[in-house]
Amino acid sequence: MEQPFFSSREAADITGCTLRQLQYWREKEVVIPTINATGTGRSIYYSQANLVELSVMAYWLSLGLTFEVAHESLMKLRAIEPRFVEPPIARRFMLKWEEMRGKLELVEFDREGAIASLDAGQPVIPVWLEQIYSKLSNKISPN
Amino acid sequence: MEQPFFSSREAADITGCTLRQLQYWREKEVVIPTINATGTGRSIYYSQANLVELSVMAYWLSLGLTFEVAHESLMKLRAIEPRFVEPPIARRFMLKWEEMRGKLELVEFDREGAIASLDAGQPVIPVWLEQIYSKLSNKISPN
Repeated sequence: MEQPFFSSREAADITGCTLRQLQYWREKEVVIPTINATGTGRSIYYSQANLVELSVMAYWLSLGLTFEVAHESLMKLRAIEPRFVEPPIARRFMLKWEEMRGKLELVEFDREGAIASLDAGQPVIPVWLEQIYSKLSNKISPN
Repeated sequence: MEQPFFSSREAADITGCTLRQLQYWREKEVVIPTINATGTGRSIYYSQANLVELSVMAYWLSLGLTFEVAHESLMKLRAIEPRFVEPPIARRFMLKWEEMRGKLELVEFDREGAIASLDAGQPVIPVWLEQIYSKLSNKISPN
């Protein structure tokens, strides 16, 4: 079966991002469409893998995290799990406060570690890929 | 004993905010110094209560939350606990994902509720006033 591709507008509608965000992220090379501009200069298409990346960004921004934190966390996610865009992966991560570095860091989710953070009065932001995939697949094929 | 007051620079140094942020927040009426500009136009002084407000803003921004979310949460904190700037209060709150409203909401901290959120893969950002006060008092009177 052929992998479907999505126009900018479709990608925006599906992931809840704005066209302006998509454009900005192309310029900043945050999320780069698989098929890029050609002769006409307008043939920008997003793969399903790109939609996962957009959804992860949209999730963090919906919480009120800044673009900088979202971008950095996306890069960290790619580094930890290069195949995070593939639904069978479905790993669980979390953004957790790292006292030493004085910032939120993406790490593997573990419930005990997460509760220990809470008990120390520190933030935990779960990043569960299964939730990202599930929301996305509802949007791609709504029944 | 007289309440001490702090210049903009002192308030910035103590709370870790920038002078630019302090100015912006004065303009936006986010944190309004108790003694405002008079004849000279330069007599801006922050009370200890103001420093608590600045510290709460600085905490949220340090996590990577946007100004909008931090500002809204500060207003919510004032609404829930108008006396939150007074150290004996020391109540515990948290920013918790509210599915219905699709955003983080400030509510009273309760450990079970916080863990239930985590178990649902949703973020919890503790806002414990004792931590805010304690960090602040270390900075005001370092021994």
